[in-house]
Amino acid sequence: MQHIYYPYGDFLSDTKQLTQKIDWKFDAIIAIARGGLGLAQLLGEYYDLRAVYGINTIGYDDTTKLEAVKVFNIPELNDAKEVLVVDDIVDSGDTVIEVLKVLEQTYPNVTFKIASLFYKKSAKIAPNWYVREAKEWIDFFWTVDMKKNDNATGK
Amino acid sequence: MQHIYYPYGDFLSDTKQLTQKIDWKFDAIIAIARGGLGLAQLLGEYYDLRAVYGINTIGYDDTTKLEAVKVFNIPELNDAKEVLVVDDIVDSGDTVIEVLKVLEQTYPNVTFKIASLFYKKSAKIAPNWYVREAKEWIDFFWTVDMKKNDNATGK
Repeated sequence: MQHIYYPYGDFLSDTKQLTQKIDWKFDAIIAIARGGLGLAQLLGEYYDLRAVYGINTIGYDDTTKLEAVKVFNIPELNDAKEVLVVDDIVDSGDTVIEVLKVLEQTYPNVTFKIASLFYKKSAKIAPNWYVREAKEWIDFFWTVDMKKNDNATGK
Repeated sequence: MQHIYYPYGDFLSDTKQLTQKIDWKFDAIIAIARGGLGLAQLLGEYYDLRAVYGINTIGYDDTTKLEAVKVFNIPELNDAKEVLVVDDIVDSGDTVIEVLKVLEQTYPNVTFKIASLFYKKSAKIAPNWYVREAKEWIDFFWTVDMKKNDNATGK
């Protein structure tokens, strides 16, 4: 599969575009770790929300399906009623589906919506808002920049 | 107070420097939200650790002191025994002190150490590892880049 490098500059302009698409008012942000962490940080600053929480998932082998997703560290939402769940990419959709299921079970009176930078059309669920369709393998800057010996690419 | 802009490129090279300083093996990372989120994401990728968790704090007025810090969303650490707690800056030190206190109370058998990009010498606690001394007000890229109209600075 072709790899495309996704530098900080593209991330920044895409995150700006994402904020232009999100026509919804929310009072907290949940980042699916690790992919959604940096995105949630920028969005939290932009929307002036200190309520930026993490949530974790782990894939494990299940006897009935190839891979199941376990969700943990479900955040305490305090008074939040509308919550934006963010991730870098909605790929198969398995993670987002499981995260949403667990969040909605835990907080039946809270509305959760999904925003991501990338979305693969073959995913089992579509995010409410996204910026780009993923057709290649994406080398996100947060994954690859630390492994490079020079710093030029990141600037 | 003088402001200095802290762009992504500096963040990347400082985060690389931080990894050269950290002479310790750890099995999980906790990001103090929001400041530590992006840093934790890069470190998690670099050290190939999926165990990257968030923790939240909120400042509130106390009758006895000017401001107290409440810590919430204490992560489930699973089997982690050595945990790196990260933040962008150790400023007064109040947040880190309270976070450490709560984590050590919750997990008496886990060792927690602190890493930050910036450290103010007047803080009440020093991080175990840091890269720069903070002498000015720092405009972190994740705070200011989203509010700029062009994307040039972030590249």
